[in-house]
Amino acid sequence: MGWFSKDIQTMDDLFVHTLRDIYYAEHQITKALPKMIDKAASPTLKQGFERHLNETEGHIQRLKQVFQQHGVEEKGVTCPAIDGILKEADEITGEIEDKQVLDAALVGAAQAVEHYEITRYGTLVAWAKQLGRPDCAALLQQNLDEELATDKKLTELAESGINRKAA
Amino acid sequence: MGWFSKDIQTMDDLFVHTLRDIYYAEHQITKALPKMIDKAASPTLKQGFERHLNETEGHIQRLKQVFQQHGVEEKGVTCPAIDGILKEADEITGEIEDKQVLDAALVGAAQAVEHYEITRYGTLVAWAKQLGRPDCAALLQQNLDEELATDKKLTELAESGINRKAA
Repeated sequence: MGWFSKDIQTMDDLFVHTLRDIYYAEHQITKALPKMIDKAASPTLKQGFERHLNETEGHIQRLKQVFQQHGVEEKGVTCPAIDGILKEADEITGEIEDKQVLDAALVGAAQAVEHYEITRYGTLVAWAKQLGRPDCAALLQQNLDEELATDKKLTELAESGINRKAA
Repeated sequence: MGWFSKDIQTMDDLFVHTLRDIYYAEHQITKALPKMIDKAASPTLKQGFERHLNETEGHIQRLKQVFQQHGVEEKGVTCPAIDGILKEADEITGEIEDKQVLDAALVGAAQAVEHYEITRYGTLVAWAKQLGRPDCAALLQQNLDEELATDKKLTELAESGINRKAA
């Protein structure tokens, strides 16, 4: 989260900081997904990542609306968590030659990304409601619902075709 | 995940690597939790973290059994994801003076940790089954179930008492 946390003293500070954290994370994800699309061998997985890239761009647009509604500057703050998750995804999928093993690793890496987003959006929705911002909560909930749906699709892929072929 | 991924070529390599990744992560969590226990103001949160520290030690014991059952060396591999998540938790909770805001931040940070574990255990259970290791899958499922239960309790805390007091 890159800020000096002495700047965070109220629930509103914490909410805005976490909003900037996920805003940074979504941007990093739009940079990582094209590499994952290139690596994926399964057409289903490739299409899934492509669809999620479109969704991610939609999430960024919703976050811009939340910044505007809440009347704070739209900006990101460095988020060591997503940086670590994406670094790990890159390392693990970097040199696997077997396409089916690589696909299984890509699904696992994508689910780690999804779960980071799920936890942050879940927290942000709870905080927005407590801060009396149902308008912001509703937009954040839409992003959360899409992340949950993507994670569910990845679980189905992991449990059905892709991993079985690789085992 | 710290390994050179050229060492990962089969589903079994991927499974063992991810097992070592979560083994490292669980150890890092046992180091981070005592600091979170110290920081927490709410007695409910403090007790929740203490209970989770005991559980985490149990998870490490189960992972040792999985290594043994699968016949591979018990060791950890550096995991940039959990390092990033814990670094962020430390930064965000480092200097918040208001105890109730700090508790809300601690709950959010703990849920990010839980979700990382949930995604990794979910993946490991799926892979263990596909590799014909229902014995390993059963142990990993027990860890997964406890992580899911902890995350649920944290959500209840986030939505009820703790955050409301801080808002």
